[in-house]
Amino acid sequence: MSALQILHRDPGSQARAGVLRCSHGEIRTPAFVPLATKGTVKGLEAREVAALGYDMVLGNTFHLFLDPGPDLVEHFGGLHDFMGWRQPIITDSGGFQVFSMGYGTVADEVKGRAPMGPDRMGRVVSIEEDGVRFRSYIDGSERFLGPETSMGVQAKLGSDIALVFDECTPFNIDRDYTARSTERTHRWLDRCLAWHDEHGPTGQLVYGIIQGGVYEDLRIESAQQVAARPVDGIAIGGSLGADKAQMYEVVGWSIAAIDVARPRHLLGIGDIDDLIRGVELGVDTFDCAMPTRLGRHGVAIVPEPDQRWRVDLTAARHREDDAPIMEDCPCPACRNGHSRGYLRYLVKNKELTGARLLTLHNLAYVARLMAGLRGAIAAGTLGAYAAAQRAGAAP
Amino acid sequence: MSALQILHRDPGSQARAGVLRCSHGEIRTPAFVPLATKGTVKGLEAREVAALGYDMVLGNTFHLFLDPGPDLVEHFGGLHDFMGWRQPIITDSGGFQVFSMGYGTVADEVKGRAPMGPDRMGRVVSIEEDGVRFRSYIDGSERFLGPETSMGVQAKLGSDIALVFDECTPFNIDRDYTARSTERTHRWLDRCLAWHDEHGPTGQLVYGIIQGGVYEDLRIESAQQVAARPVDGIAIGGSLGADKAQMYEVVGWSIAAIDVARPRHLLGIGDIDDLIRGVELGVDTFDCAMPTRLGRHGVAIVPEPDQRWRVDLTAARHREDDAPIMEDCPCPACRNGHSRGYLRYLVKNKELTGARLLTLHNLAYVARLMAGLRGAIAAGTLGAYAAAQRAGAAP
Repeated sequence: MSALQILHRDPGSQARAGVLRCSHGEIRTPAFVPLATKGTVKGLEAREVAALGYDMVLGNTFHLFLDPGPDLVEHFGGLHDFMGWRQPIITDSGGFQVFSMGYGTVADEVKGRAPMGPDRMGRVVSIEEDGVRFRSYIDGSERFLGPETSMGVQAKLGSDIALVFDECTPFNIDRDYTARSTERTHRWLDRCLAWHDEHGPTGQLVYGIIQGGVYEDLRIESAQQVAARPVDGIAIGGSLGADKAQMYEVVGWSIAAIDVARPRHLLGIGDIDDLIRGVELGVDTFDCAMPTRLGRHGVAIVPEPDQRWRVDLTAARHREDDAPIMEDCPCPACRNGHSRGYLRYLVKNKELTGARLLTLHNLAYVARLMAGLRGAIAAGTLGAYAAAQRAGAAP
Repeated sequence: MSALQILHRDPGSQARAGVLRCSHGEIRTPAFVPLATKGTVKGLEAREVAALGYDMVLGNTFHLFLDPGPDLVEHFGGLHDFMGWRQPIITDSGGFQVFSMGYGTVADEVKGRAPMGPDRMGRVVSIEEDGVRFRSYIDGSERFLGPETSMGVQAKLGSDIALVFDECTPFNIDRDYTARSTERTHRWLDRCLAWHDEHGPTGQLVYGIIQGGVYEDLRIESAQQVAARPVDGIAIGGSLGADKAQMYEVVGWSIAAIDVARPRHLLGIGDIDDLIRGVELGVDTFDCAMPTRLGRHGVAIVPEPDQRWRVDLTAARHREDDAPIMEDCPCPACRNGHSRGYLRYLVKNKELTGARLLTLHNLAYVARLMAGLRGAIAAGTLGAYAAAQRAGAAP
């Protein structure tokens, strides 16, 4: 039986709303999943993330593997007890991070993110059938992550949902390499499932990951391969294209090739328009660094589509700006009347309070958007709600 | 009439408890005043500081003068509106910071603090009768602070209590220089009062500052000079000695030479034992970076006198430590069951959440201590309460 109970379907798209049942509770879907990369959503307490309306956070296998290490997290009773978060946790596999360091600046190409290359993440020593050998960014020591290791770490972390270890291919990689890499990802998928069958914690769900780059046939093949396995859910990963149009296409191919019943997770996507479109395409859960990372750097989410839903408060024009980030916003930054000028001053002075207030605002915005999307699907009004959001309505 | 209403006196010491009335509300004394150096208590929202039980915060004239500048703060309606803190604010004069940069590493000597010398604060160009010319640490531009400038900045900030501009002499300075400097501080005091008489905001209180280094006759002379002026309150500043015994002696001389009625503020002192002794010596308010700065660096306040009331959570022995910082502590870090091991991990990883949780714990501890001291004075049990605190009781 699928962990996802679909309660409502949108007649005009593939969107669905429901409940995803995990060992630590239920996630109302479609849902955004904030990143708790290193055992905390940066700047917030676990109780605050729950109070914003989030049902699940994402813990990072790669970082927690290196520090504090799975054994120490296990000593504290698992990641839930370690970080004081009592609701579901999904853990990524470490594949993205390991392949992000790659042999160059692969990360930039995969997701258009800030460089996370050798300097920040470590350096790959070898990629072989067994897994990846690399140097830790913490102490330079040689470490290894492969399918079994990753599942072993995730078992000790005790997450509700584990993701299988995959090779995350960058955007500019050729079809041949992508094909071979995707095949290896499928072999790793089998090894992950075999390990989990024997050693996985009771109740931990396992999601497979669709790869295949931007090549339609490879994506479909990968989706069919993953869907053919007894995975509890299906994630869409890897390079999703050069632009949003291609990304939606790739997600569409992937979802068309899998079954309706199992939950679907879209990895690393979180822009406002992408969340709306992703929901229409039938995605159930999303994770992304965007709302929290932007917040720490002084960028707030606002209902301004022509500004990509962003306002950069570090810009000089906000120096004397009396207005709050957003009128009638119930978040702590807006509710307490903080002006854009004050927030700008805090961010420019690298005051923790500024990073925190913007993080709260951004996560509050995305939480309201997801609640709005869920409500609209249930009410049969998703088309109108999505159109209003795309036109700049408050969520 | 004094702004301080003394409600209770301790028969066994000079301690008193009461209410200090300011234009933005009342401060229950004796009170600790957290630093909101740059328009925020680092890592916290204003409402959280109030919720911890604090009635007043300290804003920093020097830093706010340089950035965002008094005119911009005035544009936002003054410091209260700018930072969203609705209760009283005391502003220092900038004297300490300006003289901290000095011509060397004066700051270390004045307060035993971490270096704040030329690199961090700026560089003094000249100290003259009119004031101090220095280079800004922000852009290297030449700036000037003197008695009138400082009072003018504090007027625009709109603080409830302004401190006069003084020369803060370091510990190792000789008697001759200290004598001449203290005399200039008294001339500056008169200029500050004259400026404030003519231009000061209605309702803003002005505190004079006693200097005189560690020299008994100079301290007494300075105390008498300050007390002879129509100041609303009296602060004790400058070098307070080489050790705690000498510091208590210097504070004792200062207080013995002034009247009982007016409120007394002890500048830059906040260790747990110093707060207890300061209250016994008759101090009404204290400010200090200690609780917040220690918290940001992983040090928590605990009722362990032989450890100077501190536990360094970055120490390796806390790696697997399941215990909370402190049993039965109602602060967010302890109440939510976070282990020392988890907090250590956050702090070692420079996670904002770690700095924030420890800041909340430390300020909660000091708030409870001050409430305990006030309650004990009112109940006539200060001797017993202070003895218990010195023996390691929870506050």
